[in-house]
Amino acid sequence: MELAQIEQAARRLEGVIHKTPVNTSRTFSEMAGAEIFLKCENLQKTGSFKVRGAFNKIARMAEEGSLPQLVAASAGNHAQGVAYAASTVGARSTIVMPRSTPIAKISATEGYGADIVLHGSGYDEAYEQARKICEEQGATFVHPFDDEDVIAGQGTIGLEVLQAMPTADAILVPAGGGGLLAGIACCVKQVNPRVKVYGVQAAGADAVVRSFKEKHRVTTEIAATIADGIAVRTPGELTTSLIQEFADGMVTVSDEEIAEAILLLLERTKLVVEPAGAASLAAVLNQKLPQLAGKRVVCLLSGGNIDVGFIHKVVEKGLITRGRLMRFQTVMKDAPGSLQRCSAIIAECGANVIMVQHDRMHTNLQLGDAILHVACEVSSVEHGKQLIAALEKEGYRIISES
Amino acid sequence: MELAQIEQAARRLEGVIHKTPVNTSRTFSEMAGAEIFLKCENLQKTGSFKVRGAFNKIARMAEEGSLPQLVAASAGNHAQGVAYAASTVGARSTIVMPRSTPIAKISATEGYGADIVLHGSGYDEAYEQARKICEEQGATFVHPFDDEDVIAGQGTIGLEVLQAMPTADAILVPAGGGGLLAGIACCVKQVNPRVKVYGVQAAGADAVVRSFKEKHRVTTEIAATIADGIAVRTPGELTTSLIQEFADGMVTVSDEEIAEAILLLLERTKLVVEPAGAASLAAVLNQKLPQLAGKRVVCLLSGGNIDVGFIHKVVEKGLITRGRLMRFQTVMKDAPGSLQRCSAIIAECGANVIMVQHDRMHTNLQLGDAILHVACEVSSVEHGKQLIAALEKEGYRIISES
Repeated sequence: MELAQIEQAARRLEGVIHKTPVNTSRTFSEMAGAEIFLKCENLQKTGSFKVRGAFNKIARMAEEGSLPQLVAASAGNHAQGVAYAASTVGARSTIVMPRSTPIAKISATEGYGADIVLHGSGYDEAYEQARKICEEQGATFVHPFDDEDVIAGQGTIGLEVLQAMPTADAILVPAGGGGLLAGIACCVKQVNPRVKVYGVQAAGADAVVRSFKEKHRVTTEIAATIADGIAVRTPGELTTSLIQEFADGMVTVSDEEIAEAILLLLERTKLVVEPAGAASLAAVLNQKLPQLAGKRVVCLLSGGNIDVGFIHKVVEKGLITRGRLMRFQTVMKDAPGSLQRCSAIIAECGANVIMVQHDRMHTNLQLGDAILHVACEVSSVEHGKQLIAALEKEGYRIISES
Repeated sequence: MELAQIEQAARRLEGVIHKTPVNTSRTFSEMAGAEIFLKCENLQKTGSFKVRGAFNKIARMAEEGSLPQLVAASAGNHAQGVAYAASTVGARSTIVMPRSTPIAKISATEGYGADIVLHGSGYDEAYEQARKICEEQGATFVHPFDDEDVIAGQGTIGLEVLQAMPTADAILVPAGGGGLLAGIACCVKQVNPRVKVYGVQAAGADAVVRSFKEKHRVTTEIAATIADGIAVRTPGELTTSLIQEFADGMVTVSDEEIAEAILLLLERTKLVVEPAGAASLAAVLNQKLPQLAGKRVVCLLSGGNIDVGFIHKVVEKGLITRGRLMRFQTVMKDAPGSLQRCSAIIAECGANVIMVQHDRMHTNLQLGDAILHVACEVSSVEHGKQLIAALEKEGYRIISES
């Protein structure tokens, strides 16, 4: 792909989308042992970078005098990107979404003016239906990644990063189908070959990584990761060859590493980032690329469309990992006043009980004893230990804690 | 206060802090019936605007040739602001924090290079101790709001908003002690008297609102709100008089309105905002200022330092309000297979059980019956209703649902 195509895309996108900020983070720099910058495409219109590629494709067709009906298949960011891009140029769009698509995503896509067709149990069936609609109605299919115009649109992020941070040493890019990585690598390596471009994928969906390493397109049986935005079993044909030509390397991160990165982004940078979008930061925080130590590294936060229910789970898991939520069991007399005495110690310690269960059907119990199951909020691991010590000092036997 | 003092403050802050973005939001504009802009001081260094006032005061002292030891009392954003500002100019700072201060806030403040003194059970005792340290050691006390240099520093936000949005019709500013509101009102009304400046406070801590309406400084007995950043019982003397002179009005919002605004900011704008910081948006989303209908309104998101435990609670409450978490009770036979049959219906409906309790000690039960308490995740209110209907169709009596 020519650099000129990416430059044209950038001109088309001017004034249509946000030039998202590149933020610094002292905390992440210290944690990573490198100078970390965050390119915030989670703050992009529609909540992800996908609007860039979709708009570039649609605007180019409009320039060439055609304003066809557009069709896409997606349960996620591509759906919103196409819907928004189409309505911006005054084109009609039909988005085929799997029946299981969360209502919030359906409403968001409808809100951008698209017609929604719910079809099939997963992406593959929705994709087939979208292709069928295109054939029947002579509409144009907008592929989520394996399309030159889409790739050129995503590549404009490369230009913006080099403008904001010409001294960057490396850019880390989440990669699923590979459109984003192909576009950015293709742009950055042609403009400044000194700057390294790496792809990051979730370990449970590593088709794009294996394709890079085995030098041909690989399909995996499953794509199992919390990072739904990059859970792709088959990367693109065009993207695979561009990534092969331009990218400097590929690494994987675990779902746990992604979840911890999401929580840190919430806490430290006040940004909501979706799992796919946090993969790039997860890679550098977990030293997946040791050659970047001490370098200036731009992590692309590719999107922010995360379900609140999922935020809830990520935060809850983080509170447990950090010892802010604790559970323990203790034996007490199955008699009036027992709960009160135990509660008094917990209250005295400043811990906040959120669940309590009284159980006298435990196998190892003596007659007249009961087990109390307690879950409570504490301010730190240390605080939790103080609570256990206070209970033990008053004669309570702690059976298990976690 | 002279406009020149705020301009000087802006020059001092140049290059030291972020010029935070002013974002647009189509969703919030539709919800509010006005054109909504968000000034993102939650993305400011130290996570809140407080660094502006603290740095202006400290930098001015440094310019005048003195680099004294600085002392402040705070469990929150002012602590981090003073610590960061002091370390930036190479001054020493001592922050007195109440003993109950969360460890995360202590670590953050220490991380900015301050010495921490833990003292007293609340702000008032920490304040007394800070004053005592100043007297004993000849140190300089940095007041969180009632100080001309601090107010001038916060006022620089007014200049930035007018630069970014000269056509703004109104600016909504969270107000506790009143430093932020006094500074911004003082700046904006002198630069462009056409632009309205309103203060927003939590209903449970309305001293600054009553002071404005009663035209003299009022102290309240308590300040009870989730918005800890503006939970102030006594506003400043100087701030009260500046607000009286320059502000156009004051409104209050409820804690529920604030919590909903926090959740919407997470979901729609991908931004983490603390309760005090979300008050301004809460006011406009709940039509507290009907005169702003159709106008261009800038909501100041003053800070983003919110404890993850608190995010967890806000999100959980939101999930319940939106029907994404539901509870119900049903009667079933206290016999083998009962739980399995009920579970099968729930599974068939695609609901995810997160809590189940079996209870045969309920007063209204017939012998041989048991009550099953169930909590589960559903995708919407509608989905929850479908689940209840499916259970009833199979003969289950639903006793209560919520």
